[in-house]
Amino acid sequence: MTQISTLGEFGLIRQLTDKLPQQQPSTRKGVGDDAAVMNFGDNQVLMTTDMLLEGIHFNLEYVPLKHLGYKAAVVNFSDIYAMNGTPTQITVSLGLSRRFTVEQVEELYSGIRLACERYGVDLVGGDTCASLTGLTISITCLGTAKADEIVYRNGAKENDLICVTGNLGTAYMGLLLLERERQAWTQSDSKAVGQQSDQTAKRSVSEAVFEGKEYLLERQLKPEARRDIIAKLRKAGIKPTAMMDVSDGLSSELLHICSQSNAGCAVYEDKLPIDYQAAALAEEMNLNIVTCALNGGEDYELLFTCSLSDYEKLVPIDDVYIIGHITKPEYGKLLIGRNGEEITLTAQGWNAFTE
Amino acid sequence: MTQISTLGEFGLIRQLTDKLPQQQPSTRKGVGDDAAVMNFGDNQVLMTTDMLLEGIHFNLEYVPLKHLGYKAAVVNFSDIYAMNGTPTQITVSLGLSRRFTVEQVEELYSGIRLACERYGVDLVGGDTCASLTGLTISITCLGTAKADEIVYRNGAKENDLICVTGNLGTAYMGLLLLERERQAWTQSDSKAVGQQSDQTAKRSVSEAVFEGKEYLLERQLKPEARRDIIAKLRKAGIKPTAMMDVSDGLSSELLHICSQSNAGCAVYEDKLPIDYQAAALAEEMNLNIVTCALNGGEDYELLFTCSLSDYEKLVPIDDVYIIGHITKPEYGKLLIGRNGEEITLTAQGWNAFTE
Repeated sequence: MTQISTLGEFGLIRQLTDKLPQQQPSTRKGVGDDAAVMNFGDNQVLMTTDMLLEGIHFNLEYVPLKHLGYKAAVVNFSDIYAMNGTPTQITVSLGLSRRFTVEQVEELYSGIRLACERYGVDLVGGDTCASLTGLTISITCLGTAKADEIVYRNGAKENDLICVTGNLGTAYMGLLLLERERQAWTQSDSKAVGQQSDQTAKRSVSEAVFEGKEYLLERQLKPEARRDIIAKLRKAGIKPTAMMDVSDGLSSELLHICSQSNAGCAVYEDKLPIDYQAAALAEEMNLNIVTCALNGGEDYELLFTCSLSDYEKLVPIDDVYIIGHITKPEYGKLLIGRNGEEITLTAQGWNAFTE
Repeated sequence: MTQISTLGEFGLIRQLTDKLPQQQPSTRKGVGDDAAVMNFGDNQVLMTTDMLLEGIHFNLEYVPLKHLGYKAAVVNFSDIYAMNGTPTQITVSLGLSRRFTVEQVEELYSGIRLACERYGVDLVGGDTCASLTGLTISITCLGTAKADEIVYRNGAKENDLICVTGNLGTAYMGLLLLERERQAWTQSDSKAVGQQSDQTAKRSVSEAVFEGKEYLLERQLKPEARRDIIAKLRKAGIKPTAMMDVSDGLSSELLHICSQSNAGCAVYEDKLPIDYQAAALAEEMNLNIVTCALNGGEDYELLFTCSLSDYEKLVPIDDVYIIGHITKPEYGKLLIGRNGEEITLTAQGWNAFTE
């Protein structure tokens, strides 16, 4: 008997999907990228899916249902953008335990609908069923792209620039902040059961605690997919050579691109884009913000590589940061520290099977 | 606060999807049929999704994991065939609690792969994550069809023949049989803890209990999608006017077709196809087999309507049964009993929210 934790999520997926045959001429790309690619006619069809489970991916003690719905949809859109495609349709499957009311499900759906409206995506179907415990959300997203525009993970070439959008580790710091406040709240709750005035006092204390850290909460609770960057790259005439979204952490994603492209990489610690609120909280919590930026998940930023010849076109684009370059595979996958020291990147990522 | 049970599954879905806007020109049909329909080019793309939760949809005490995987895939194929399409790709999302081993997940996947192989479908992606409790399986299936071949639920016309394939209520009787044996097994287990010889004796008793009822188990544990019927109808030149698969029970599905087609129906009790093993078990368990045939779920047979002018072409097709005809809506949705009595059909179906 092999415990799943011995393989980890990626190992398990590899083992399960290792020898999958393809029988359909319309299948262009199966397992192994942000989305599958099908050829049904004029345009290519992209397909991605994501499952969120209560207690694993979210905690309803501090995640509002509307935000949860919004995020559950947006993370799927992010996968389609990461293929350089446009998300077009989703289906939503929900498992709901008896404690959920219709109003709560409406709340969840209002977030999903808002995301669909903002990103121009249609909700076209789904499945709703009872569950014994908690809330399960499974969303599948379709998208389209022209065949010659799709960007896979395997196209990075030596000397390509490695770029990342926005900032890294911020969503993770938002999660740590929420977890810290939840614990403080629970502890003071158990001390002051039933004391109404204390409850009110606590709430304003809590609001004060989040002051100046609102951006961290937003990044954790209501991430956006980088549609804007995809549009800007297209406008600038840049087609990335490889791309994926940062959902498990930069290190983990870089290793995917390198292994699928048969390449090495060198990224520079001092180039990693880090938000100042995230840095301040890391300081306050005695954490190394670079570690958080490398391994914190759920940023939903884009990580891409592009030809060095695109450098001039790339520089004027807001919110894109060049963090390193692709090397020969034998040079390894390296983080270059502030003092020039070389550290081999490892995927710590978010491995829920080995907590 | 509204409990979900006050609306039921269909009521909840209606409420959630009532005013969904469609922004994508490629969306031809959203929520409300067996699958959504997208127009991406030469062929139409169909999309359907299904979620299965441990303790609600299956009980691992008597459902082998390989069978479960097979069934989870096939029920999605069935939805695509029910649109007169061909299933082409699936994605599989799994939520797995710690008690599952890699070997067990392999077992589940081997069933999914077998179904894919048999039906010519590609497994192109998915998501695998830890869960706190039990097993969750969410599968989304894509399919294709020519635009003029797709059959919706809303095309039934007055005087159309109502047809059903295979037999009805058999999967439900299989479930009752498995549940009965599980209970007997549990009871004798609690009486005879640790008595090895009793265990062995029990096993052979149990095998004897299933003798002559193997077909019921097969229908429950390893259903097939009616690809054969779709092919035969096409070959015969019959395009159904409305079609869906029987997953919630004949009554429930008939009401869907009637309400979406704005029609009434008359189906005849003595025309309902019933398997003799199912009838025998119903007798043994003191149940009315007609009620089971009308309301038992998971048959995954096809229910369709077609023009009266197709009658001659229809009759030679094996395993298709004409059970009634479509009427004007004001005549209601009726079951005509053996003595000519008229009974209004109601959807008892499988409403997991109102057990």
